[in-house]
Amino acid sequence: MVMGTFPNSDGVRFMSDTLLNRRDLDFQLYEALDTESLCERERFAEHSRETFSAVIDTADRIAREQFAPHNSVADKEEPRFEDGKVTMRPEVKTAMDAYAEAGFIAGRYDYELGGMQLPETVMTACNGFFMAANPSTAGYPFLTTAAANVIRTFGSSEQQQQFLEPMLAGRFTGTMALTEPQAGSSLADLRTTATPTDEGHYLIKGAKIYISGGEHELSDNIVNLVLARIRGAPAGVKGISMFIVPKYRLDAEGNPGERNGVELAGLIHKLGYRGTTSTALSFGSDNECHGYLVGEPHEGLKYMFQMMNEARLGVGFGATAIGYRGYLHSLEYARDRRQGRHPSDKDPSSEPIAIIEHADVRRMLLAQKSWMEGAFALCMYGARLMDDSHTAPGEQQRHEARQMLDLLTPVIKAWPSEYGPRANDLAIQVYGGAGYTREYPVEQCWRDNRLNPIHEGTNGIQAMDLLGRKVWQGSGEAIQLLFGAIQRDLEAAEGEQCQQWAYSLSETLQQAGQVTQVLGKALGQESPEKALANASVYLRLFGHITVAWMWLRQANAATAGLTRDPEGDDAAFYRGKLQAAQYFFHWELPTVAQDLVILRNMDDTCFNMRDEWF
Amino acid sequence: MVMGTFPNSDGVRFMSDTLLNRRDLDFQLYEALDTESLCERERFAEHSRETFSAVIDTADRIAREQFAPHNSVADKEEPRFEDGKVTMRPEVKTAMDAYAEAGFIAGRYDYELGGMQLPETVMTACNGFFMAANPSTAGYPFLTTAAANVIRTFGSSEQQQQFLEPMLAGRFTGTMALTEPQAGSSLADLRTTATPTDEGHYLIKGAKIYISGGEHELSDNIVNLVLARIRGAPAGVKGISMFIVPKYRLDAEGNPGERNGVELAGLIHKLGYRGTTSTALSFGSDNECHGYLVGEPHEGLKYMFQMMNEARLGVGFGATAIGYRGYLHSLEYARDRRQGRHPSDKDPSSEPIAIIEHADVRRMLLAQKSWMEGAFALCMYGARLMDDSHTAPGEQQRHEARQMLDLLTPVIKAWPSEYGPRANDLAIQVYGGAGYTREYPVEQCWRDNRLNPIHEGTNGIQAMDLLGRKVWQGSGEAIQLLFGAIQRDLEAAEGEQCQQWAYSLSETLQQAGQVTQVLGKALGQESPEKALANASVYLRLFGHITVAWMWLRQANAATAGLTRDPEGDDAAFYRGKLQAAQYFFHWELPTVAQDLVILRNMDDTCFNMRDEWF
Repeated sequence: MVMGTFPNSDGVRFMSDTLLNRRDLDFQLYEALDTESLCERERFAEHSRETFSAVIDTADRIAREQFAPHNSVADKEEPRFEDGKVTMRPEVKTAMDAYAEAGFIAGRYDYELGGMQLPETVMTACNGFFMAANPSTAGYPFLTTAAANVIRTFGSSEQQQQFLEPMLAGRFTGTMALTEPQAGSSLADLRTTATPTDEGHYLIKGAKIYISGGEHELSDNIVNLVLARIRGAPAGVKGISMFIVPKYRLDAEGNPGERNGVELAGLIHKLGYRGTTSTALSFGSDNECHGYLVGEPHEGLKYMFQMMNEARLGVGFGATAIGYRGYLHSLEYARDRRQGRHPSDKDPSSEPIAIIEHADVRRMLLAQKSWMEGAFALCMYGARLMDDSHTAPGEQQRHEARQMLDLLTPVIKAWPSEYGPRANDLAIQVYGGAGYTREYPVEQCWRDNRLNPIHEGTNGIQAMDLLGRKVWQGSGEAIQLLFGAIQRDLEAAEGEQCQQWAYSLSETLQQAGQVTQVLGKALGQESPEKALANASVYLRLFGHITVAWMWLRQANAATAGLTRDPEGDDAAFYRGKLQAAQYFFHWELPTVAQDLVILRNMDDTCFNMRDEWF
Repeated sequence: MVMGTFPNSDGVRFMSDTLLNRRDLDFQLYEALDTESLCERERFAEHSRETFSAVIDTADRIAREQFAPHNSVADKEEPRFEDGKVTMRPEVKTAMDAYAEAGFIAGRYDYELGGMQLPETVMTACNGFFMAANPSTAGYPFLTTAAANVIRTFGSSEQQQQFLEPMLAGRFTGTMALTEPQAGSSLADLRTTATPTDEGHYLIKGAKIYISGGEHELSDNIVNLVLARIRGAPAGVKGISMFIVPKYRLDAEGNPGERNGVELAGLIHKLGYRGTTSTALSFGSDNECHGYLVGEPHEGLKYMFQMMNEARLGVGFGATAIGYRGYLHSLEYARDRRQGRHPSDKDPSSEPIAIIEHADVRRMLLAQKSWMEGAFALCMYGARLMDDSHTAPGEQQRHEARQMLDLLTPVIKAWPSEYGPRANDLAIQVYGGAGYTREYPVEQCWRDNRLNPIHEGTNGIQAMDLLGRKVWQGSGEAIQLLFGAIQRDLEAAEGEQCQQWAYSLSETLQQAGQVTQVLGKALGQESPEKALANASVYLRLFGHITVAWMWLRQANAATAGLTRDPEGDDAAFYRGKLQAAQYFFHWELPTVAQDLVILRNMDDTCFNMRDEWF
């Protein structure tokens, strides 16, 4: 780790340019997961650990050189609407172009499409660096990737040629335009309409809000994926269709031509993520707004969910990356800053100690490490499931991976987005007064990260998705698969420490299984409202169990590493892993005892609370 | 409650101008506490519930009219250093002047000093409105009050005449200048020096940081209370003296004259509390800086602790007020905003419901209510202890109140400052995407409140103060008094519900007592480091027990209220109190089980973590 103070372009002081811990990333990829085994699959046959490392090196370098330096300044000088245009710091475009030129937008695509046929696991690792370096600027290419993936899967070949190709090249950017002011998260209440015309396109009319990247001058065109109702469609979510609605219509050569009727109604000023424009858009209010149907009418929800599920995994990983970076900042500060003495040292003339020597500072650092490395392991596990769902050797394996990923998606979205901001909160506390100032970087991490429990479905919605739907999907097949996977890692535990943790996890898992049955019965028999009332508690329980499992996997791998070479260069790293695992098993996992009680009793305190009693 | 949208001067949308719930305040004053009984004491003999109410009405009105409207705009246009002066929004001075003119700075003082001889309990209630309305602007008069109180207690009669009088009138403002850049919280390492002169004053030389209100044009003079070492003083905290160091020296008539050598080294740009200037000051770097010794040499720490203890109570109460206001905002929003349907309602054509009807939104509101009304009760209880320590009829009673207040001070500082920001976090979540924007008021609450776990001694320092010192003070006299006070409320519990809660609290208390003995033994025998390593966990345990006790007291009072009139106008209010108490006893108090385990085992996970393992 490089030490010394590196002020960035805005004078914010941080000590090294560490984004993620590279040793930890290698551990996740090659010790906790067996990423090299992906190269045995035909799709990745030309890859090797060396090519993966080379791509990750590139991501690390571009993130460090092009994304990190303007993270703070783009937060302070957020995009403005002036003279009919949205202007922002020029570094944003330079960074986005560098990302596209290095091939990251199309990284996962076929060679023929200009892609690198990289596994999701490796793409996720790469994106971690961009997200840690500058979540706001990373937003533009990430949204483009998400929209591109939908057009790749569901768009016609004409749409692919017209829109996908320039998106992959970074010439067009993309957005997801779902939310409407009156409906919020309730997609059933969307009102934007689509009227068919004889020329094949539809006329779109309506208003959308919180559209990230909905207006800017970063690209030649903005490709909005818009949810709308074709006139006469069924009410509710069954009547939603998806449309490509570009800012500029394309001319005969496929170049951006006439302005389409998408208007910026206003910029939204956020608490964080300030570098990403958040817009209110109106469609077809002044000018005709052309939209091109994606796939079949009334199937928009299905298409959207592909995008949404990817976005939810991205949110969880983003929360992890920002939480992780804050942890690394506070760790460096705690090593550098000297203040106070040990409680038993009563000699005021002795030298002050580095604050990392204070037990309470170590607690705050270890909590961050335990939460964020646990979340990191979870997100990487999710990425591997995405790979397996596409490229595992047998159809049954692919099916199982899809089931597991579906089940875990709300957990991967919500758990890191709860604990990422919490980690950033502790990072501020480690800095003390300095952490509360805008001259140090952790306050921005904290503000940026606060979006993650909200967007792409609030964590309350994730909880309803998990307990109301995912757990019961396929008659509980997914949850059985999850229990089986955990079981294998429980059995793999070696040594007294890991076996003890395996025992704790196994006990908790059994109780969680019982509680799940109780809730399932209630959901089937009584009013579902009461059984679902504590869904957030269930999500927390599920999340803690999942992350404990991730820590057992990491502890198993660390134990193996230490056994291979107990005094090697990596011994301290492995011991740190075991200590962070111990933190999770001693300090975190036991807290679910209370969640289990509340769920088992179907505690009705919140359910029974009445409006007039507040 | 007045409904409808009231945009403030900056266009931030909030629905009513509710600051604190007045019905709840009356409940705290006259049902949970017996504030009227104070009027039986000689000092307050001229007061009555009516005069208290009139003063509170005035506070409520000035807070609403003069403080609340510029809360957001002063956050956005923070103070600037221009042309050698610190400029800020003019509303700040108008508000501060209104506060002083209404007599609040001197509110607690003797009639002869121009005061109103108001009890601390009532002054605290009043200050709650200002803190909820605008914590940044409230900072200026509050700091002035804190400094004035020190001069009143320890200053010479000349100092009182020169500085206290104009401070009480609001012509001079005050600061606490303790922290130095290299020392942070470690007062033992202060380096600012004071050199005696033949003229009686000292020459001060040094640098201070994070001095709130250290420079501005709001008053004719700024009276800094500065900690410094007289040359030749003992090392460490035993060699610290306190000095009055004004911005302007006084001329023969007592008016601000020549500029004293206090220079603004820089403004600190904070994450929140942006309306309060936070300064780096240098003393005696260019010009001679005169300081006037307060009290005796080397006794500065003692004087400072009077101010610091008051400030700590103020921090806890400020965190409560900001948390409370965020709760009220989110409650109004949840009643107004319509979105989604009940899980069992599958008809997309039915009307969307107000989001307060979603159980998870009620959970987030009830958690805020339970935390903040619990914290409010705790702060009001602390204010009453302050009254009792000064004016209780017998010396023994006064002594006991002082003991209890000493013990509870770190809890009153820390618990609300942990749970206030947490409440604000939930308030944002209730708003969803809107809560993340700067167009709604809760994000500012969240940012402002984040300072409270840090300033006036971080919560880590509070934990060390509690477990390392306060619990053992007077051979455990204070803790016995506390147990006795709780015992009386346990015995007063009536009805099945309250008795059940009393039983839970009693059980927890017993276990906490045992754990305290274990830790006390370890502190005496082994290295104190290991026993103190989990001090933060002990503080959390202690805080939860204390707040549970506050909830039992409130539940007892609410039960009495319901018994008096089960179907009266207040029945819904009392039922809400009982439901919030239930939330605390079902959802919060049981979480200390895990704290007890960690403390009982003296879990060494964090203690044993090593720098090189991170």
